[in-house]
Amino acid sequence: MKNLKLGIFGFGCVGQGLHHVLQQSDSVNSEIVKICIKDLKKSRPLDASYFTDNKDELLQNEEIDVIVELIDDADAALEIVTAAMNAGKSVVSANKKMIAEHLETLLELQSKNKVSFLYEAACCASIPIIRNLEEYYDNDLLTSVEGIFNGSTNFILTKLLADGLPFAQVLKEAQDLGFAESDPRLDVEGIDAKYKLCILLFHAFGLITKPDDIFNYGISKINEFDIDYAQKHGYTIKLIAKCRRVNDAIEAYCIPTFVPTGSVLSQTSNEYNAVILESAFSESQLLYGKGAGDKPTGSAVLSDISALNYDYKYEYKKQHKNDGKFGLSEDFNLKLFVRYNGVSPILEDFDSIEEKYSSDRGNFLVGHIKLHELKKSEWLEDDTINAILLND
Amino acid sequence: MKNLKLGIFGFGCVGQGLHHVLQQSDSVNSEIVKICIKDLKKSRPLDASYFTDNKDELLQNEEIDVIVELIDDADAALEIVTAAMNAGKSVVSANKKMIAEHLETLLELQSKNKVSFLYEAACCASIPIIRNLEEYYDNDLLTSVEGIFNGSTNFILTKLLADGLPFAQVLKEAQDLGFAESDPRLDVEGIDAKYKLCILLFHAFGLITKPDDIFNYGISKINEFDIDYAQKHGYTIKLIAKCRRVNDAIEAYCIPTFVPTGSVLSQTSNEYNAVILESAFSESQLLYGKGAGDKPTGSAVLSDISALNYDYKYEYKKQHKNDGKFGLSEDFNLKLFVRYNGVSPILEDFDSIEEKYSSDRGNFLVGHIKLHELKKSEWLEDDTINAILLND
Repeated sequence: MKNLKLGIFGFGCVGQGLHHVLQQSDSVNSEIVKICIKDLKKSRPLDASYFTDNKDELLQNEEIDVIVELIDDADAALEIVTAAMNAGKSVVSANKKMIAEHLETLLELQSKNKVSFLYEAACCASIPIIRNLEEYYDNDLLTSVEGIFNGSTNFILTKLLADGLPFAQVLKEAQDLGFAESDPRLDVEGIDAKYKLCILLFHAFGLITKPDDIFNYGISKINEFDIDYAQKHGYTIKLIAKCRRVNDAIEAYCIPTFVPTGSVLSQTSNEYNAVILESAFSESQLLYGKGAGDKPTGSAVLSDISALNYDYKYEYKKQHKNDGKFGLSEDFNLKLFVRYNGVSPILEDFDSIEEKYSSDRGNFLVGHIKLHELKKSEWLEDDTINAILLND
Repeated sequence: MKNLKLGIFGFGCVGQGLHHVLQQSDSVNSEIVKICIKDLKKSRPLDASYFTDNKDELLQNEEIDVIVELIDDADAALEIVTAAMNAGKSVVSANKKMIAEHLETLLELQSKNKVSFLYEAACCASIPIIRNLEEYYDNDLLTSVEGIFNGSTNFILTKLLADGLPFAQVLKEAQDLGFAESDPRLDVEGIDAKYKLCILLFHAFGLITKPDDIFNYGISKINEFDIDYAQKHGYTIKLIAKCRRVNDAIEAYCIPTFVPTGSVLSQTSNEYNAVILESAFSESQLLYGKGAGDKPTGSAVLSDISALNYDYKYEYKKQHKNDGKFGLSEDFNLKLFVRYNGVSPILEDFDSIEEKYSSDRGNFLVGHIKLHELKKSEWLEDDTINAILLND
């Protein structure tokens, strides 16, 4: 058993909780030696000798074995993480944007420097989904991973469908409660969920992608008409990120989806996240927990630190096994509900139209459309058009 | 990567599904070489050359690396597993009764013979709870594990509370549907759930127990009065197995429990199982899936076989870490609802009584009682008395 010395970047609630728990734990045999922060003048609950605003005091400190990166800025985080690994230090990070966008670089860094880079907190915070994909679903029997990966949008959707308030008002409430960022675009447009999907695509199927490769569609255009449709048809609406293997092709997207009321995904409310795994024998497994917040993030970071005590590394078995075998496919059909009030969707983009409805309140169609057609359709971005996935 | 040769005991649906999936998988690089069954005359979907009724043709077969034990009889299973490990073969088993009752012996066998013994399917079938306790919750930060560990009783309770039918009728329905054994005592009295709790006590806290050490109370006495109480107070009733660490003491029991309607445990219906883990930062995690049946069991067995390809062993870190530190405690209070129609519970057994109610329909009290008092109280076993745990 090691006695790991930690250098921490960022000392918000996660960092503070981490310090508290490490002091109490017998077995996570680690101690914080130095903390790098932006503002040295701010009052802190620890002795001033812990703090520095000079990152090299951590990165070039030979006493420090592990860098724990807990800052928001993805570019600054990449710089820190790169320098840390190049200095032979293992790294724990929660920065999903950085990881999703620079996965290949980060893999090379850890391989070149023979260090470990763990990031369980980057995907659904406290839900140990990466570790389960690495360790338990370490074979080719996995067929799909899907779920609710973003707590802010799930909070908004829960309120939107329960209270029938307009989107802007619910968003404001979420922001006031701290469940949504002041710039909510990353959450609301499904980009944050997509970052997590990119990371899971790699651990589920060994597939390296860029966030730009994955289709995402947001929740901000959902209106009363859509909610009414959902409720009349026994659905709720959830922002679902999904990847699925069909033979050697991987299908992946992040789209608001009608989910049957009573299903486990429909019951995943507010800031909770859920991940459903489908595997051999077609049996589905659910992992459920808080997907954001200080404590859930802290508990995942702590588990990573604990694993480093045993020299744990992700083995990336899927990448080695599936190397080049699986590719991202956009040539598959989505069954889509498209509601429109002004501009009409272009019917020729659809493989088939199952239903059409028009009224004074709004119009909709239900049709099958290939993902590559959907991605390039301009009508989809019109303010008066909204699309929601219908699963059978 | 190995090419594991498997010898299988038992060839029901799990064995057959396993054969099917192994043929399709590229990465679970294993093949079945021999299958031991009781009745050679029964028609089988595989070539007759696979089958034998002589167990030594598997146990003494040097070609076979791994024995997969899929039979019901715990005593026969112990014999097979013992002989297999002594012959230097790794073992995969789903036999919770055998494992719970002979844990210490089985640990010695695998250590002495330097083989691996995996049994994920023995706890909540497809839910990877053992692996998560071993790998992800591999430190002393875990504080409690609880859940619904038995699908048959959960099916019965779901029907009992939804339809208001008498217990005997619901039990009959469950038996007709194959969700309960013809001798349902192991399920209904909470003994099966207790076996799983014993296994989890070891992987959660490193504590070796015997099933007889753990208190269990069944669901067969739940009547209309109890159900009415639950519904009026916003509860449903679930058979909950729980273990919890309080400093160096471990509390463990398996008791029907009032669970708030709307909570995730209340929403775990029919044959589903759920496990809730509480860890540092007080954040709870839920794992959810089918807890019984051929496919869920098969998928867990398959994951164990897949792990053996990488020489995976349970490391039993908790046992090494907590060696002798944690002991089972019975000196803690349970808040109990006790309904009685004839005989009265002995009030002196309780630390305190919070409520008393009497009517023509029945009487109840709500009180705090130490587990060691509850265990020895004879009134608890009276046919006209039923106890259900109340959590705050």
